[in-house]
Amino acid sequence: MKLLVINPNISDDVTALIEAEARRSAAPGTELVVRTAGSGVEYIETRFEALIAAGAVAEIIAEYSAADGAAANGPAIDGIVVAAFGDPGMPALKELADVPVIGITEAALCAAALQGHRFSIIAISDRIRPWYLDCVERFGLSGRLASIRSINEALSAIGSVQQDFKETLLALSRQAVAEDGADVVILAGAPLAGLARELRGQIPVPVVDGISAGVRMAEAVVGMQSGSHRAGAFSAPPVKGRRGLSENLDAALTAVQAAALAAAPAAPSN
Amino acid sequence: MKLLVINPNISDDVTALIEAEARRSAAPGTELVVRTAGSGVEYIETRFEALIAAGAVAEIIAEYSAADGAAANGPAIDGIVVAAFGDPGMPALKELADVPVIGITEAALCAAALQGHRFSIIAISDRIRPWYLDCVERFGLSGRLASIRSINEALSAIGSVQQDFKETLLALSRQAVAEDGADVVILAGAPLAGLARELRGQIPVPVVDGISAGVRMAEAVVGMQSGSHRAGAFSAPPVKGRRGLSENLDAALTAVQAAALAAAPAAPSN
Amino acid sequence: MKLLVINPNISDDVTALIEAEARRSAAPGTELVVRTAGSGVEYIETRFEALIAAGAVAEIIAEYSAADGAAANGPAIDGIVVAAFGDPGMPALKELADVPVIGITEAALCAAALQGHRFSIIAISDRIRPWYLDCVERFGLSGRLASIRSINEALSAIGSVQQDFKETLLALSRQAVAEDGADVVILAGAPLAGLARELRGQIPVPVVDGISAGVRMAEAVVGMQSGSHRAGAFSAPPVKGRRGLSENLDAALTAVQAAALAAAPAAPSN
Amino acid sequence: MKLLVINPNISDDVTALIEAEARRSAAPGTELVVRTAGSGVEYIETRFEALIAAGAVAEIIAEYSAADGAAANGPAIDGIVVAAFGDPGMPALKELADVPVIGITEAALCAAALQGHRFSIIAISDRIRPWYLDCVERFGLSGRLASIRSINEALSAIGSVQQDFKETLLALSRQAVAEDGADVVILAGAPLAGLARELRGQIPVPVVDGISAGVRMAEAVVGMQSGSHRAGAFSAPPVKGRRGLSENLDAALTAVQAAALAAAPAAPSN
Amino acid sequence: MKLLVINPNISDDVTALIEAEARRSAAPGTELVVRTAGSGVEYIETRFEALIAAGAVAEIIAEYSAADGAAANGPAIDGIVVAAFGDPGMPALKELADVPVIGITEAALCAAALQGHRFSIIAISDRIRPWYLDCVERFGLSGRLASIRSINEALSAIGSVQQDFKETLLALSRQAVAEDGADVVILAGAPLAGLARELRGQIPVPVVDGISAGVRMAEAVVGMQSGSHRAGAFSAPPVKGRRGLSENLDAALTAVQAAALAAAPAAPSN
Amino acid sequence: MKLLVINPNISDDVTALIEAEARRSAAPGTELVVRTAGSGVEYIETRFEALIAAGAVAEIIAEYSAADGAAANGPAIDGIVVAAFGDPGMPALKELADVPVIGITEAALCAAALQGHRFSIIAISDRIRPWYLDCVERFGLSGRLASIRSINEALSAIGSVQQDFKETLLALSRQAVAEDGADVVILAGAPLAGLARELRGQIPVPVVDGISAGVRMAEAVVGMQSGSHRAGAFSAPPVKGRRGLSENLDAALTAVQAAALAAAPAAPSN
Repeated sequence: MKLLVINPNISDDVTALIEAEARRSAAPGTELVVRTAGSGVEYIETRFEALIAAGAVAEIIAEYSAADGAAANGPAIDGIVVAAFGDPGMPALKELADVPVIGITEAALCAAALQGHRFSIIAISDRIRPWYLDCVERFGLSGRLASIRSINEALSAIGSVQQDFKETLLALSRQAVAEDGADVVILAGAPLAGLARELRGQIPVPVVDGISAGVRMAEAVVGMQSGSHRAGAFSAPPVKGRRGLSENLDAALTAVQAAALAAAPAAPSN
Repeated sequence: MKLLVINPNISDDVTALIEAEARRSAAPGTELVVRTAGSGVEYIETRFEALIAAGAVAEIIAEYSAADGAAANGPAIDGIVVAAFGDPGMPALKELADVPVIGITEAALCAAALQGHRFSIIAISDRIRPWYLDCVERFGLSGRLASIRSINEALSAIGSVQQDFKETLLALSRQAVAEDGADVVILAGAPLAGLARELRGQIPVPVVDGISAGVRMAEAVVGMQSGSHRAGAFSAPPVKGRRGLSENLDAALTAVQAAALAAAPAAPSN
Repeated sequence: MKLLVINPNISDDVTALIEAEARRSAAPGTELVVRTAGSGVEYIETRFEALIAAGAVAEIIAEYSAADGAAANGPAIDGIVVAAFGDPGMPALKELADVPVIGITEAALCAAALQGHRFSIIAISDRIRPWYLDCVERFGLSGRLASIRSINEALSAIGSVQQDFKETLLALSRQAVAEDGADVVILAGAPLAGLARELRGQIPVPVVDGISAGVRMAEAVVGMQSGSHRAGAFSAPPVKGRRGLSENLDAALTAVQAAALAAAPAAPSN
Repeated sequence: MKLLVINPNISDDVTALIEAEARRSAAPGTELVVRTAGSGVEYIETRFEALIAAGAVAEIIAEYSAADGAAANGPAIDGIVVAAFGDPGMPALKELADVPVIGITEAALCAAALQGHRFSIIAISDRIRPWYLDCVERFGLSGRLASIRSINEALSAIGSVQQDFKETLLALSRQAVAEDGADVVILAGAPLAGLARELRGQIPVPVVDGISAGVRMAEAVVGMQSGSHRAGAFSAPPVKGRRGLSENLDAALTAVQAAALAAAPAAPSN
Repeated sequence: MKLLVINPNISDDVTALIEAEARRSAAPGTELVVRTAGSGVEYIETRFEALIAAGAVAEIIAEYSAADGAAANGPAIDGIVVAAFGDPGMPALKELADVPVIGITEAALCAAALQGHRFSIIAISDRIRPWYLDCVERFGLSGRLASIRSINEALSAIGSVQQDFKETLLALSRQAVAEDGADVVILAGAPLAGLARELRGQIPVPVVDGISAGVRMAEAVVGMQSGSHRAGAFSAPPVKGRRGLSENLDAALTAVQAAALAAAPAAPSN
Repeated sequence: MKLLVINPNISDDVTALIEAEARRSAAPGTELVVRTAGSGVEYIETRFEALIAAGAVAEIIAEYSAADGAAANGPAIDGIVVAAFGDPGMPALKELADVPVIGITEAALCAAALQGHRFSIIAISDRIRPWYLDCVERFGLSGRLASIRSINEALSAIGSVQQDFKETLLALSRQAVAEDGADVVILAGAPLAGLARELRGQIPVPVVDGISAGVRMAEAVVGMQSGSHRAGAFSAPPVKGRRGLSENLDAALTAVQAAALAAAPAAPSN
């Protein structure tokens, strides 16, 4: 199984953290391709930054989707992980590929929900919280959210947040358990990738790492081979006039639309 | 990785369907132990039948949990799958073991939610629907439920439901897509184990099999090694007077309580 | 009118508290039969303990239900009160008897909701809160819950909680009114049975006692003579193969199924 | 126990139906005083008609509340039932009396919720449905509403609706069970008072009569003696300038404010 | 465009504040008629006081509605603003006029929701909060409410609240932003009319004035000329027997009923 | 007042429809600048198409926002209307300008909610419905949505949809009133701009046009002068490293960040 893991922000040191944890987490047979967004911001904290990031992630997905459409032997990748908490561009990006596209937030929410009833999210900045809350609400699990707690100090460098604020993150996690009733803690954000492994013994409930959840859940979903979207809201966007898109996006749309048309006879007739 | 898969009803032919699909679905390194409830009903359709089943599942979990507590080398099993749609006894049963315990409904809901926005559940009897709806509501994802559709004819034999009603199930699935707006269809109930593989080409959206989801999601969660519950609502029940429980339940409670006490220093101090 | 009141935990001193308050609360013509669970734990604080208790309550209900089925002159009891806050086994247990089965939580929630808009629950332990919250959510009234507050000290003896922590419980109740906006306070848990009478003058809003609510609401519902479930989710579980149940459960299922079949002509024909 | 039962519309024949069913339903020791609104409409179908009715009900409550305030021996009535489905003026009217004030809708919703999980409401006109839906949503139980079904023909006379449309009402009730999944049916509206007794054998789930529920639930709540509102949203409105109210309303406000002040020492001090 | 602005409480100094801010806010071509309730209380803090106020507002609307019905040249007013936060009598009062009737709370909620995602309400007394919360819930936007904060000291005079408590209101507003996550602050209640203009520079998010929102939103809605209610829940109440209403109410009902009948041919025929 | 109205799709004939209705709707003193997206699709039906459109709208807003930042005399525009139903890029785009940015969906939802309780949306294609439903849910008003009905035939040309399907749209609107309980109907989508004016007499409830609502609501919000976002989730994105953005986006971010810093002293200090 081959997974494409995309860092939606432009920081190479965050990509390195993502890649390291993704490799530690992946099952034996899983091959990983890790990519960094070509444009955007250092790290994503706001709804608008997420919108910018979504465009950059779309370009990378399109590059692979277009290639898959042109390939003789089926897709070169089996699934895609969007590796920023907050899931920029999701679920819209699921329309752009014929393989599962999974955000690390939705993966982490599922991983948490399967291990307890209420969960808390520990975040790297106060500004990031409204966007994360949107994300939980849009996924539909806000009824199980115990709290979102966050670092409220300025970050000196995004690549060293987990080292610089380890004690703060540990304290926030324990408060989530003791005061907010969290059964599970999610350490949110790609900059925290790998920290869960380190802190687990010191937090008295299961601790979920977004990257680890993203990779494992993508493996699980790809493994189920549930089939493609040939109808409904996640099938290929309808064929129609378009203009001004990048070459990759244009080719990717053509590819998914062609795949949908080829499969047309399977559409329901009743 | 070794998973214990429990059929909460007493039908051996359903256990055979479960086992076959679980083996087809499992990743290469996964070992499976499949067990049938020692008491209960032929198949579970009502809240009360689910309550009875929960007790029977508890006995089997307790048997392994107690053995794990007594074992020198850690748990003999790494995770547990409760293999009846409706998740009898969940989430309570998560308190009884020190490894992840995952129901096939919660696994299927996550698998569906990661592949689309709205999903429908196709069920084997009208009577079963209120219990399934409870289950979706309690998991917290009812905002994403498109519909529950069901066979409204009497079943002749539980082991052959998927053969006897294949056309009906296919029609219900297609209606869910065309009329209810389902992006994903869940074929619900262990008696339908394996049918998704057969019908996928004929339903124009991803089709989720509960058993397959249960096994794959359990593998994913076990693989994340998120840590144990040493505080909060899923830690071991507090030590207190008890009476009249089976030997296994009694020993299992003793075992999880001992494990929690051994880990006490890790409890939050703030 | 004859009501069966079941204590789902094994503590005889709690049964005594229940019985005393039930007798103080009951209307003149009401006869009470009070029973203690044959197996289980000293007092119920967790979802798993509630599951165990549900099984024990089912056995007692079954004993009466089976007897009623065999009786020539109709049921020997007119209604059943499940007397532990958190309503173990509900609403499933409503399927097992042909008379109203009412939990003290659902009764207390209704009693509170009829006297004010928002209510708080005062509980005897922190651990018990997630289960109580589940219970309010499942009953569907969580939109009216102001707060759940609880004693966060260890209990020395369950029979004397209300004496040992009277001042704490009073302070928690007043905080619920002053800080959480409670219009009504529910003193939750059978171990607090009768305390509401004592504290009423000292809490500036109506105070609801679970046992009192359970008995009074059961009288009200029994008095309405609304009729039986002959269709829908609370009618008798369908006739099917079963195995390994206790004699009483087996007989009770047979009895409710027989009653349903006897009434079959009343089923809707349109 | 003495209950004041108020018909919020001006139809004497509806008052007669209410009184007859209230007397059939009341427990042996309950004394009933039945009153008809002094102004308003023939029967209430819209939010505005309910607003008009609320004013008329307030006048009658005020008459008794003012008298109670002047009485040497405590209240002449122990509880009040507002006997129109839709509960005009509730919950505001609870502020105006020092005894429980209970609407027949909230009583019926509780009676239904204690007997099953999902309930349907059968109503006498299409126009009435949005107001009833508001009422269920405001009480907080809309998550358990299966459906509201209604007669969509013109009524010839409000006093004979239950006779004129008996077959329609029976058919709507059965459809609610068979098609909407209702576990309980509520026959809504005072004009249907008493019909539930007649139809019970022909509808395969419990059938709740609003008047019967109102009287029985009021008896239950009064019997619990939960105490008065001396703080919070249902205590007496604060003393302040007012103008142009009826003599009764003015006196009633003075009476409840005086009672609150007399009880002031019981207010929370923390 | 001519708007009728109604102060639902009896305080002339509050009416003066309302009128001043309404005139400052109105667009050039808007003419305003400002009226004070003929009966009621000094300022509205409770659900019951709001019920009383609703009746008084209905009388004023009826006066204009009846006049419009009698007029040869269409309505003398084009829209109505109910100028008390909490929107007494809404949405029922929308049935009573053939022009838009808009409450300042619903207007302020829309104005806030269009400028940010989460909003807080700053209120003049603790007692007022449950009623305001009801109002937000009934409008359906409680998912976007960050908090309701309030002055918890006694008010010396309603006309000078905004001067007497300016610093407190400023502090509450800033806390709503910093601690509750408010993107927008609503200064609630007619007694605060005009204060938003003064405080804007000192609060770091948009600040909404209820009166200003009421006038501007009424202008917007009137300007859209969306058409009348000739069917559905806000069309004129059905013609039926009524008794004891004021002359104005009686005439207004007759007028809206006549307008509805005149328009009957436009009713849907399918 | 000067409003920038942006058509997020690339169809000039839709821009013409938007401009015509915007001019008909605007208040006398309102000046309009109408722009068409520089890239994207012919009309927007899916979440992915909306994502693409959001990027194109951001570029246009940025062009004006950057210019405003450079201008000596304050913003050249006073408000922005995003003129596609579904509000592509909202609410994220509110971060990118220092003036109100309003989507026509949120404007139409407010306009509908102020005129009735429940509303229906009439849409131009089945595929568009899930995205519209997302939009209503995200705005927080899904509790008031009666239904979304849509044309289920292929469109021949987007510029003539309202002519080609006038009878269908009229029938769908009437069904929404008669069958779904809509109090207000929203004709959704810029391609339907202006149709509401034509159909109003034939639909028995108020009919809301998205463009008209967008312009009128933007005028109302701009007119309230509520102040800017200097803190919270809609203030300028924090200053940080960024790369690969268009010149306009880069300049616009610099401009809003500079405006926020200039206003810093107004931030809350408590």
